[in-house]
Amino acid sequence: MNFRTLPDGVSAEQFANAISEFSETIGSEYVRVDEATVSEYDDKFPVTDGDEFKGSAVIWPGSTEDVQVIVRIANKYGIPLHAFSGGRNLGYGGSSPMLTGTVLLHLGKRMNRVLEINEKLAYAVVEPGVDYKTLYEAVRDSGAKLMIDPAELDWGSVMGNTMEHGVGYTPYADHSMWRCGMEVVLADGEVLRTGMGGLPGSEAWHLYPGQLGPSIEGLFEQSNFGICTRMGMQLMPTPPEMLSFAIYFENEDDLPAIMETTLPLRIGMAPLQAAPIVRNVTFDAACVSKREEWQTEPGPLTDEAKQRMVDELGIGHWIVYGTCYGPRWQIDKYIEMIRDAYLQIPGARFETNETLPLREGDRASELLNARHELNTGVPNRHSAAVFDWFPNAGHFFYAPVSAPSGEDAAKQYEDTKRISDDHGIDYLAQFIIGLREMHHICLPLYDTADPASRKETLDMTRELIRAGAEEGYGIYRAHNVLADQVAETYSFNNHIQRRSHERIKDALDPNGILNPGKSGIWPERLRNK
Amino acid sequence: MNFRTLPDGVSAEQFANAISEFSETIGSEYVRVDEATVSEYDDKFPVTDGDEFKGSAVIWPGSTEDVQVIVRIANKYGIPLHAFSGGRNLGYGGSSPMLTGTVLLHLGKRMNRVLEINEKLAYAVVEPGVDYKTLYEAVRDSGAKLMIDPAELDWGSVMGNTMEHGVGYTPYADHSMWRCGMEVVLADGEVLRTGMGGLPGSEAWHLYPGQLGPSIEGLFEQSNFGICTRMGMQLMPTPPEMLSFAIYFENEDDLPAIMETTLPLRIGMAPLQAAPIVRNVTFDAACVSKREEWQTEPGPLTDEAKQRMVDELGIGHWIVYGTCYGPRWQIDKYIEMIRDAYLQIPGARFETNETLPLREGDRASELLNARHELNTGVPNRHSAAVFDWFPNAGHFFYAPVSAPSGEDAAKQYEDTKRISDDHGIDYLAQFIIGLREMHHICLPLYDTADPASRKETLDMTRELIRAGAEEGYGIYRAHNVLADQVAETYSFNNHIQRRSHERIKDALDPNGILNPGKSGIWPERLRNK
Repeated sequence: MNFRTLPDGVSAEQFANAISEFSETIGSEYVRVDEATVSEYDDKFPVTDGDEFKGSAVIWPGSTEDVQVIVRIANKYGIPLHAFSGGRNLGYGGSSPMLTGTVLLHLGKRMNRVLEINEKLAYAVVEPGVDYKTLYEAVRDSGAKLMIDPAELDWGSVMGNTMEHGVGYTPYADHSMWRCGMEVVLADGEVLRTGMGGLPGSEAWHLYPGQLGPSIEGLFEQSNFGICTRMGMQLMPTPPEMLSFAIYFENEDDLPAIMETTLPLRIGMAPLQAAPIVRNVTFDAACVSKREEWQTEPGPLTDEAKQRMVDELGIGHWIVYGTCYGPRWQIDKYIEMIRDAYLQIPGARFETNETLPLREGDRASELLNARHELNTGVPNRHSAAVFDWFPNAGHFFYAPVSAPSGEDAAKQYEDTKRISDDHGIDYLAQFIIGLREMHHICLPLYDTADPASRKETLDMTRELIRAGAEEGYGIYRAHNVLADQVAETYSFNNHIQRRSHERIKDALDPNGILNPGKSGIWPERLRNK
Repeated sequence: MNFRTLPDGVSAEQFANAISEFSETIGSEYVRVDEATVSEYDDKFPVTDGDEFKGSAVIWPGSTEDVQVIVRIANKYGIPLHAFSGGRNLGYGGSSPMLTGTVLLHLGKRMNRVLEINEKLAYAVVEPGVDYKTLYEAVRDSGAKLMIDPAELDWGSVMGNTMEHGVGYTPYADHSMWRCGMEVVLADGEVLRTGMGGLPGSEAWHLYPGQLGPSIEGLFEQSNFGICTRMGMQLMPTPPEMLSFAIYFENEDDLPAIMETTLPLRIGMAPLQAAPIVRNVTFDAACVSKREEWQTEPGPLTDEAKQRMVDELGIGHWIVYGTCYGPRWQIDKYIEMIRDAYLQIPGARFETNETLPLREGDRASELLNARHELNTGVPNRHSAAVFDWFPNAGHFFYAPVSAPSGEDAAKQYEDTKRISDDHGIDYLAQFIIGLREMHHICLPLYDTADPASRKETLDMTRELIRAGAEEGYGIYRAHNVLADQVAETYSFNNHIQRRSHERIKDALDPNGILNPGKSGIWPERLRNK
């Protein structure tokens, strides 16, 4: 057999034996080594020119038992596995592994059932392959009066997004907070059920996250300590009514005032019941147009081009989107409070999806109504238009976390804008305002077909991470190519966080089989390489 | 030197050397071995007749650095440490250790500062010794418009309660959910800062719980993997108004209807914005009277005695207490929705702290207004009166977790009541209704001075745990004397939960120094003893 690539230190013969054993136990149609199939899992937005981040084979398990068998065989032959749910978060490397030669374990390919929808207790239980669209449709078709909290794009795996600390936009936006009850295959093939799942006959597995002893679900998020094969997601009961709003601001330097207005409205969980987003004009423009409409020259967008976006799209230099939930009498009061607060900022303009309903050719209405869908539990892929901002566009994420203050927003905006301009790369971003923190989600876009563009954007993103860390801004997730750099920024006490992760890694996965290098956590044999 | 007791396998000489080194490094006035001082830490509600659960010495560290030094010395001499914040949860063994001979590490004795109160971002940072009363006063005196979520008794440590999965009664009742950012001394003396605390200069340590990689704060809750020395607690901005209500029910068998009414009001987080409690008449009576007022004979309380409590106190066989938060227009609407729903149950009676203000001699008003205090962030120790229900009263907790359904409540109530009656022990309980789960908090009371009463109550509690587990009801916390039994009930896949905890324990604390036996997690050298 010819293999595309091999795991480090594994001979072709050894690998062939492992592949045979995988095939015999779970079925040869579910174990693929052919270039055409395996290359489908490469990074869709390739950023390096070498052979990094390539899988050697892909396995499609059909059940938790399959996953158990697979990790046992992987241990026997010393084969690293890159387990992932859907692998659709393209800005973070998609389904590609940290380590070339790793065998891809695509959980969601066949494990894609919604196992339970419980209307009375308001939760669903999903397998790794359930994406937001599938969960939405399953809940809708069940007739349950429950609402999901979609991620930005409907193709994302519910479990994958949650395990990676993804957020949405409804009152259930903090996905980690609302997941409850996991089934995890450990590196030795044993199955762990967390919380009340450990007590036979308990019906509280997906209701309450605790049990006697420590809460270890968080341990499996964004790590390589186990493979989650089942997860409970608590869902919000559908409120009687929902009304979304957009607020448009005239000036780029309104940003600090927007943040200082938002915080007190948000921190009491009312009238802003869910995380609003604060988007820059370029992000909104990229959802409904192509770059060439505004500027054909490369290099940073001119002020004139951005002003034309504002004027012609009928939006603002910054746009706040959000939604109110509840009975109409409450929504009306909340909307009034929100409007009155933001309209203190000179030039601000306020619309709702009632005053600005979807109208053909009105791109501002398209933008607001696409947000209204997401914010009311209807997944879409409206924002995927950014991948067409220019031909062959791909992107990273640079997403520092900070206090949701005007000062922090201004500092981050200025730094990021300046560094972007220096590299001639568009600044395209939104702030998501949680209760006490904001995620500043920046999308450095590059031409994936142009090595120079790739390099420039990678260099810029590395600079952003470095400059941000110096200001005290940490990143909550990282692309494969950036993971080690980001892990390095968490340096308190000689990287005690990473050293602790490594001790747990070595205890739970002594052979270092699972997702080597994930989040900068390497197994002992690959450390300091 | 004469020692009260010694750790297993440690000679008097070795122990004396360790004590000397502790004294030399942190000061001899902070290291005590005298019987008078150390016995203060024994279980205040002793339940066994032997020498179980006794400390050999007590150390009062003054800083994180002290704790680091102490664990390093403990490792050197093989001395087990029982670290605790305040040790005031008397129903769970107070400050007593699982293993006799363990050295007590009373963190809160000197480490009792409120390190920060941040009004704008609504959080506080506490050391282990800060109790609810202290935090309340510190916030009040700071002038910050923030509200704390008190535990049932004001003397509880904020950190200790949170680490043990304690809950309160305001919208911030789930303390684990609202803690953010820990400093932890690991078993080898290294200091770990979780989340954004790992990034030098980050101001988001107590704002956002994540960072790159796994979320490991939960690992340190209710375990023995590290010693928490600092914790951020997010606080609720004080709402404009708050109004509490009490609803009184005429019949014991109203319980299922109460639960089925509560669930839909609660699960959408409005109109029940916080966890209401559903208390039985005996619990309320024990907060404002002594048992002898109602019945002088031992054995279960008669129906006649309980009816007299209802009539003479002016309460119900079940009483629901809760509070609404927000602007008055919203509170009025919510109160109306809540009242209308519960008054569907025949015989139900509805009061608020406005219709039933505190009046001398009116014990129903005293009860409601004590709840109003707690539910509006003012800690008290009103419920501590249960310790005087009869002379020398002490208690366990039996607190199974289940779905908040009428069926589960009825089953638990019937089983618990029947087993309590069989043992001649009063059934004294309240249900706390979270969003999707309820804690059924039962207080089996016994005469701590009477060996027969202690034995009977222990036997009964063991029977409750056994019977509950058979029905699928798990316990979220356990008294020292019950921890191993409760851990045993989490038996899925040959106790994979416990085996996973043990692997992490061995990796992080190879010498098994920290809190041996906590939550049923024993270090390798003490397993299968």
